[in-house]
Amino acid sequence: MATKHLFLLPGDGIGPEAMAEVKKLISAMNEKLGSGFATDEGLVGGCAYDAHGAAISDADMAKAMAADAVLFGAVGGPKWDAVPYEVRPEAGLLRLRKDMELFANLRPAICYPALAASSSLKQEVVEGLDILIVRELTGGVYFGEPKQIIDLGNGQKRGIDTQVYDTFEIERISGVAFELARTRKNHVTSMEKRNVMKSGVLWNEVVTQTHKARYSDVKLDHMLADAGGMQLVRWPKQFDVIVTDNLFGDMLSDIAAMLTGSIGMLPSASLGAPDVKTKKRKALYEPVHGSAPDIAGKGIANPIAMIASFAMCLRYSFGMVDEADRLEGAIAAVLDQGLRTKDIFSPGMTEVGTVEMGDAIIAKF
Amino acid sequence: MATKHLFLLPGDGIGPEAMAEVKKLISAMNEKLGSGFATDEGLVGGCAYDAHGAAISDADMAKAMAADAVLFGAVGGPKWDAVPYEVRPEAGLLRLRKDMELFANLRPAICYPALAASSSLKQEVVEGLDILIVRELTGGVYFGEPKQIIDLGNGQKRGIDTQVYDTFEIERISGVAFELARTRKNHVTSMEKRNVMKSGVLWNEVVTQTHKARYSDVKLDHMLADAGGMQLVRWPKQFDVIVTDNLFGDMLSDIAAMLTGSIGMLPSASLGAPDVKTKKRKALYEPVHGSAPDIAGKGIANPIAMIASFAMCLRYSFGMVDEADRLEGAIAAVLDQGLRTKDIFSPGMTEVGTVEMGDAIIAKF
Ligand SMILES: CC(C)[C@H](C(=O)O)[C@@H](O)C(=O)O
Ligand SMILES: CC(C)[C@H](C(=O)O)[C@@H](O)C(=O)O
Repeated sequence: MATKHLFLLPGDGIGPEAMAEVKKLISAMNEKLGSGFATDEGLVGGCAYDAHGAAISDADMAKAMAADAVLFGAVGGPKWDAVPYEVRPEAGLLRLRKDMELFANLRPAICYPALAASSSLKQEVVEGLDILIVRELTGGVYFGEPKQIIDLGNGQKRGIDTQVYDTFEIERISGVAFELARTRKNHVTSMEKRNVMKSGVLWNEVVTQTHKARYSDVKLDHMLADAGGMQLVRWPKQFDVIVTDNLFGDMLSDIAAMLTGSIGMLPSASLGAPDVKTKKRKALYEPVHGSAPDIAGKGIANPIAMIASFAMCLRYSFGMVDEADRLEGAIAAVLDQGLRTKDIFSPGMTEVGTVEMGDAIIAKF
Repeated sequence: MATKHLFLLPGDGIGPEAMAEVKKLISAMNEKLGSGFATDEGLVGGCAYDAHGAAISDADMAKAMAADAVLFGAVGGPKWDAVPYEVRPEAGLLRLRKDMELFANLRPAICYPALAASSSLKQEVVEGLDILIVRELTGGVYFGEPKQIIDLGNGQKRGIDTQVYDTFEIERISGVAFELARTRKNHVTSMEKRNVMKSGVLWNEVVTQTHKARYSDVKLDHMLADAGGMQLVRWPKQFDVIVTDNLFGDMLSDIAAMLTGSIGMLPSASLGAPDVKTKKRKALYEPVHGSAPDIAGKGIANPIAMIASFAMCLRYSFGMVDEADRLEGAIAAVLDQGLRTKDIFSPGMTEVGTVEMGDAIIAKF
């Protein structure tokens, strides 16, 4: 069996603590199952800036490009609030997404039964929730040019960002959404603002054409993104797969994550196109939560989103479906057992730290 | 007392039904209180397109410009889904906002005690909720140029929209937010995506400067817009006034509206700058809900958002604070009494139609 090359980028804040639990898991899998993972580690975000003045070094970028999969922790913190825009912590993540061409961001929003009560939404609204947001990740207003601040004189400046989408970008992301829908409830909802945005008009048109040409077996709905946000809050179970652009995806996936009552639980996968020869996709896996600088270093961070991101890695990068299922099962089992980190604690449960939570999941795996 | 000129644009779908209740109220106020309202009426949206091929005619635009205040219903419906982009129903609303320079959109999200249980959020999360979203309405990606679809050949098109903000635009909208905060809990949260958008960097900078220069007595927080959306769902009562750009404001105000459990209840005001001589502001008042074509013409639409928009009109355009308070009190009273339109019905309450709801509010006024 070929060695599986993982490149780890723990990043800032609680990133390293959460990643430490995945490292233990990787060691355990190598020892007990002979899974054959080889890991290397680099810097991204504020810590990379501190080390060499960029949010990710060219050397680490090259390692990310060469790896079978990248595991990413989190970036940012108040320490770097005032660094120049070009080298701010987020620039490292954005460069990874862009240079690796990770155009498809998969964000499942799953409500674990054991946590349904801890959502701010009514239990019946979120219990059993299982939706998948497919967010376009390398286009739109995140990367369009011009993107600049112009000095107009007289104390006036002008801030400009450009939302750009080409047909092929919309085609390939909607293809991913339709394919995934076929493995689920066969229903895709596409969201844009075609009533005010020309890119939204094109988005709507291309998704409709792609559906007609190749995926007419899948149920397709269109919703304006503002109405979609409302519907997510009103009755999220009406959705199966949601496909949307980079910026709307950013907003909507965070809202979907919050519905589940457990942002510390949610993983994501960012995938490139399959290589024409090897069929392998470049891939990066990261928790939806951020670096949470306020609780960093205290040993109380929830490692579940990071571990669940590794489960997605097993599934999508290595086809290790059984192992992924078992790992997700182990997470559900420790929750059923009543173990809770602080962020998801409720009376009657057992509060544990990052390390204990990681150990418990590995023990059940 | 000078005549108060109102220009009514009922629009499409449930717009005319909801507006009819406000017309009854205006007549009653003229008869019983001698309020001195003069009304004129025009077409906007799909009905305007049907009548003369544009989403609003130049003649009606001129009347809107000349009026003391415009009352707007709702626009759009499946009938006009395929009309050209330039004359789609929404274009009428966008032209009104732009030509009247209505840069400040005020969207209160208030949870009426009688309705707290009907939110999809837990009662304790939304009970007593009273936040105000101040949305910039004449700039950003809604109006920036270029805004176009380019044919690239080879079956490829490119959709482009441009987000543009100038210093003065951010200054004036944040000024409105700070002023309003002083009449409330004195707390403003500004939301943008400065970590990916240059317009967000400028937004953050200008809000900070405006605060320092003129409003340092108000508490100011900054939040990334995606995190802000999450926090709205997690614990909305942490907010007082939220100030944000046109597109984020569109998303966030719809989500805030949905939290209250009663999108059919929520009004909005869109205001221009005070005239240097007369101090009067151009203004348009509209419900947050849309045209709801599925229930149009059935007599079951909730007229409360439209009536509450008229209450905002009394308050902001005519300084009729007592009347506005009494009208809002009348709405709360009929709800306490148990009257409900279909959209907010729950067991044990009395279901009424649009006309009965309007009559009941007028009777309590
Ligand atoms: C950190 C930031 C640049 C990023 C984004 O806006 O995409 C984050 O919010 C996310 O959703 O992954
Ligand atoms: C109808 C549409 C153009 C409008 C907008 O996007 O601003 C609506 O959603 C709103 O929020 O008033």
